[in-house]
Amino acid sequence: MGGGVIETLVRNREVIASRTGRDVRLVRVADLQTERFAQFDLEGVQTGANASELIADPAVNVVCELIGGIEPARRFILEALNAGKSVVTANKMLLAKHGPELCRAAIEHKADLRYEAAVAGGIPIIKALREGLAGNRIERVCGILNGTCNYILSRMTYEGLEFDDVLAQAIEQGFAETPPDLDIQGHDTAHKCQIIASLCFSTEVDLDAIYVEGVTGVTHADVAYAREMGYLIKLLAIVREAEPGGAIEARVHPTLISEDHLLASVRNEFNAVYVQSDTADATLYYGRGAGRFPTASAVVADIADIARNRCDAPPAPPFRYEQRRPVLPMGEVRGRYYLRLTTLDKPGVLGRVCTILGAHGVSIASCIQTEEHSEDPVHVVLMSHETVESAVRAAVQDIDAIETTREKTHVIRVL
Amino acid sequence: MGGGVIETLVRNREVIASRTGRDVRLVRVADLQTERFAQFDLEGVQTGANASELIADPAVNVVCELIGGIEPARRFILEALNAGKSVVTANKMLLAKHGPELCRAAIEHKADLRYEAAVAGGIPIIKALREGLAGNRIERVCGILNGTCNYILSRMTYEGLEFDDVLAQAIEQGFAETPPDLDIQGHDTAHKCQIIASLCFSTEVDLDAIYVEGVTGVTHADVAYAREMGYLIKLLAIVREAEPGGAIEARVHPTLISEDHLLASVRNEFNAVYVQSDTADATLYYGRGAGRFPTASAVVADIADIARNRCDAPPAPPFRYEQRRPVLPMGEVRGRYYLRLTTLDKPGVLGRVCTILGAHGVSIASCIQTEEHSEDPVHVVLMSHETVESAVRAAVQDIDAIETTREKTHVIRVL
Repeated sequence: MGGGVIETLVRNREVIASRTGRDVRLVRVADLQTERFAQFDLEGVQTGANASELIADPAVNVVCELIGGIEPARRFILEALNAGKSVVTANKMLLAKHGPELCRAAIEHKADLRYEAAVAGGIPIIKALREGLAGNRIERVCGILNGTCNYILSRMTYEGLEFDDVLAQAIEQGFAETPPDLDIQGHDTAHKCQIIASLCFSTEVDLDAIYVEGVTGVTHADVAYAREMGYLIKLLAIVREAEPGGAIEARVHPTLISEDHLLASVRNEFNAVYVQSDTADATLYYGRGAGRFPTASAVVADIADIARNRCDAPPAPPFRYEQRRPVLPMGEVRGRYYLRLTTLDKPGVLGRVCTILGAHGVSIASCIQTEEHSEDPVHVVLMSHETVESAVRAAVQDIDAIETTREKTHVIRVL
Repeated sequence: MGGGVIETLVRNREVIASRTGRDVRLVRVADLQTERFAQFDLEGVQTGANASELIADPAVNVVCELIGGIEPARRFILEALNAGKSVVTANKMLLAKHGPELCRAAIEHKADLRYEAAVAGGIPIIKALREGLAGNRIERVCGILNGTCNYILSRMTYEGLEFDDVLAQAIEQGFAETPPDLDIQGHDTAHKCQIIASLCFSTEVDLDAIYVEGVTGVTHADVAYAREMGYLIKLLAIVREAEPGGAIEARVHPTLISEDHLLASVRNEFNAVYVQSDTADATLYYGRGAGRFPTASAVVADIADIARNRCDAPPAPPFRYEQRRPVLPMGEVRGRYYLRLTTLDKPGVLGRVCTILGAHGVSIASCIQTEEHSEDPVHVVLMSHETVESAVRAAVQDIDAIETTREKTHVIRVL
């Protein structure tokens, strides 16, 4: 049923209307478990257990398939496409196994079939590959595409745990599916790998030809040796051109990546896709690969694209100046602040500085004083708690007026 | 003139035609320095010094403005929009200063005005904000948007250099513009900040209201103290909602970011944009923010969008199965390999292992042997040079057959 999609369409209806120039409305929902409807604000929305009736309803222009698995998802998508209706799906397994059949139906009936949510959840990677990099030949894609595997490997890496222990905890805490096989054996990643390979190289790709090795064989010892050599272990989907115009590589396996590589910084349940292409060179896309709202973000983006692309509309305006909102004056911005004082190293100086800061309501989180007891001025570095910028400015003005201060205090804002 | 765009349109014409379903052709180029035309393959392309003639040419549907600066860029863009032609521009300064005027002309004449290349070069961030995150309320955007500043700060951070020394070298090596003021004073970043703020919050934003502090005041001492506290210094553009529906924050200044933050891993001339939004949660986009080809990637993506959105075309097919390319068998994949052997710690074992590897053509780049002289089996970890997978598999089979081997050898591929 897609509770995240329902909530997003309702909550952000105005934003979506503004971004697409269309009033996108949820008109009908189908779910076999009809008792679930009560959880949602479905006023004015027709509900029922029969998906075929939903698909046949003339009020429905776009059908979202959020069932998962092969059947009946495949049948419903074909019904919708055959009726000339656009379809949005998050179903990676179905696309990886039946992509050509669905694609033929979409083309034949001039219907749109979109699947942003099928790969890397809330990251708009399908859009980037299809549109954002339209002027590029894609050379290589490396993706961390399964949050459960990345979560397990991250905890093994940073907490020194063994695979089985992390997996058991992940299942207990609901981070991993039960059974977790589709994730940890690498098949979920392989489905996404198949989709990316098909898209990047405009070719049918046989799912069974993709080499798949999951993370179950990775031991803590391997993780530790890899780190000793400057590497981390990640489950990657790798797609690249092996021979120009000929064979491609498409494979899923645990991979050592240099700890300097940006993918090495992708921790816990996050996903990321690294793309090497001939014109843009390296680009990377990072975000949440699963979860009801990240998935909903992708599904709604697809719906918005379909709405926007209807042919009777003018081009989207470059900016939508719907209002004129002021920029907050810098003095009113709140944040944490790094202050570097340059002062003579006299007794009592730090006390005076702290008194001034306190008087302006600026409280200090930490302090470094360089330990050169000398006649030369020394640096005192302070990090504040959150405060308003005008207070910091006023305090710095007073600090800079102390007779022992030797240079204007450096202020740098903290994110 | 945009040499990168010309080369990309020529080199990737087939790819672009496949992705858009349109034959996008370069028909005309204008540049005051007409002697530059000789550098490019412009057969069949009309060339000249007069941009107004190009704009008026009925064969031209889309005009790319790649001049930069305010005039005559503004005048040419208005000419094109007023003639109902779509425009693609990389001109951030012009958009930041005259966005509303250009936007009005685009809407009035139902023309498309696109500017992906104006922010973060080859990273499709405008597309992500407008379309990929269409179902999201944007809460906060933090961007590293100037490659020169990030390059300077990276070298100060990792090589302990002072600002002036790095800047001088960057100018000498052509990494920085001469004069570098627009970059290092933060104004280039502020232009991009203005565009992002206008787009995210659908509001006009007064460029002069954006607080701008460049990187010229950052000293090596500050970089070092920040690192001591677990932070890096980056020049960030920060945009966020200060009050729901009310004031926004839009500011550019050096900022301490935690070394665990993904933006901290964005080094040298690379750009990145971190977006916090209500549905997708955190997403990040990384790539090259400047350079002729990254810029061309963005310009061509805009052209491709305009071509694709022409109303007489059916929806883009979900996949384009233009060919059927085989997946390279895993045995033929080439790469580097991590091998972990579990063996009794007997003299001569390592020698035998190396002989086997050598016999299969696998050469070793590095080796770790755990130093527990005991009766228990020990681990030997080897990292190979690049080799073909079938050779590694055959060698491992032989190694696992040695009588001192106590466990199957673990093999992990290296990116």
